[in-house]
Amino acid sequence: MRNLNQHTITEAVIERFADTPSPRLKRILTHLVKHMHDFAREVELTEDEWMQGIEFLTRTGQKCDGNRQEFILLSDTLGLSMLTVAMNHDKPEGCTEATVFGPFHVDGAPHYENGADIANGAKGELCEVSGMVRGIDGEPIAGAVLDVWQADATGHYDVQYEALAQPQNRGVLVSGPDGRFNFRTVAAVAYPIPVDGPVGDMLRATARHPWRPAHLHFMVRAEGYETLVTHVFRRDDPYLDSDAVFGVRESLLGDWVPQAGGGYALEFDLVLNPKGSKRSVGSAHATRGLMRSESIS
Amino acid sequence: MRNLNQHTITEAVIERFADTPSPRLKRILTHLVKHMHDFAREVELTEDEWMQGIEFLTRTGQKCDGNRQEFILLSDTLGLSMLTVAMNHDKPEGCTEATVFGPFHVDGAPHYENGADIANGAKGELCEVSGMVRGIDGEPIAGAVLDVWQADATGHYDVQYEALAQPQNRGVLVSGPDGRFNFRTVAAVAYPIPVDGPVGDMLRATARHPWRPAHLHFMVRAEGYETLVTHVFRRDDPYLDSDAVFGVRESLLGDWVPQAGGGYALEFDLVLNPKGSKRSVGSAHATRGLMRSESIS
Repeated sequence: MRNLNQHTITEAVIERFADTPSPRLKRILTHLVKHMHDFAREVELTEDEWMQGIEFLTRTGQKCDGNRQEFILLSDTLGLSMLTVAMNHDKPEGCTEATVFGPFHVDGAPHYENGADIANGAKGELCEVSGMVRGIDGEPIAGAVLDVWQADATGHYDVQYEALAQPQNRGVLVSGPDGRFNFRTVAAVAYPIPVDGPVGDMLRATARHPWRPAHLHFMVRAEGYETLVTHVFRRDDPYLDSDAVFGVRESLLGDWVPQAGGGYALEFDLVLNPKGSKRSVGSAHATRGLMRSESIS
Repeated sequence: MRNLNQHTITEAVIERFADTPSPRLKRILTHLVKHMHDFAREVELTEDEWMQGIEFLTRTGQKCDGNRQEFILLSDTLGLSMLTVAMNHDKPEGCTEATVFGPFHVDGAPHYENGADIANGAKGELCEVSGMVRGIDGEPIAGAVLDVWQADATGHYDVQYEALAQPQNRGVLVSGPDGRFNFRTVAAVAYPIPVDGPVGDMLRATARHPWRPAHLHFMVRAEGYETLVTHVFRRDDPYLDSDAVFGVRESLLGDWVPQAGGGYALEFDLVLNPKGSKRSVGSAHATRGLMRSESIS
């Protein structure tokens, strides 16, 4: 394997994966290398562009910390996140559709009782949210764990503030015996994704706007059902057709209904897919720890 | 643009680049998104694998610092670096071939006179290196600036040591009026690329060895000639056919000749390509600052 040129190198690299113990990892890397090399050949990538790519990825990694995930943001803005979600959640008709996870979820959010105010001091107009968690046949799902998170009236998530004393606009609730949940929060508004990093550079360089339509995030887990990660979007938002991360589904539009006494009410049911009803492609593969050294015995 | 699925999302993302001011950037991103999405669809990427990819890239970025470039190492070990070099340096017969830059070059290495000892205290057997910088018609090139760097007898570059007081095994020399250069260094040995980061995880997970055959790096710059980035490899090295970064060229093999008084001598001429003699694909594009926000007026 000497004197490899731009035409022979791809096969040589793939051949180097011949002894990979995991067939799944071997398959993934083979396709990855083939597409990466085809890309470079098709655009006749220059060394200067290659170095700009290296620097871009390096800056993206270095922008990440406990509260910021710039690679997820990059994946979101290049449509890879929504593509992956769409492939893995081809659910039966009637289930609530999934959308992107986004970079702002935090594990270990505070637990609240139904009826509580999860805004916890965040800026914004009051919004009373309620709904039912149910199965596809209409059965109420009691004890479902709902992780909820959203931005405030200025378009920022709590983790985007440097010195916030406590979590705001995020919390974990449990559906009641009738499957119902309700909580108070602030009315969601459209906001720009963070543009002070490499993803912002990409958006500016491509004359793309950074706006996401107003939405409320849900992650819903219940025994015997597939976990649902989704948003509810505000039906009247001007960015529904140009979401910076390609996540809008018609079925996920909800109505923030103005209330006589001020504020809004939003009612939205979350319909879960029973496990095994329709297998997602993802569940066919054992995929944990593909690239961690400790996974190799 | 709502309800995008795994089949419709790629065109939607590409459409979002419609207003990109730079046609070159638009072309690059269009091909990048197409290949990234095709890759994900072909392997039916799961959400768990997607997250492992995000984490792998994040760790790769965070492993980088002033002395370590893990993304270059990743590009090297996936053959993208050598592919890019090969595409951009399709030189006329007789020129010294290019190979990968690698992650261990440092700007601002110390300047030395010809004959100097650039090892500067590094461990290893003595090696006297000499040669001539010349053009393809044999003309000596005086005043060529040679950047030289290599690992020591333990296989480490100076920047891999935490607390080294001065640069070792690296320096900048200038060819004399006859085009000749010479310096003293240590004999190059085969060494493993650093495996304490994500690239090491990838190599272990694919049962690949991390070894590079012994080599000495050169970057040679001279007025009127294309810059040459290359290595000279030791002809008797056992890893010539399995270089971890796919960089070996038969024409770059040199002889470390044992000397009667101990140590080695290496003689190797560096033949530069006159600018304009054969245009590289790279020079056709104006590619600086594609993704930096300041490049967008």
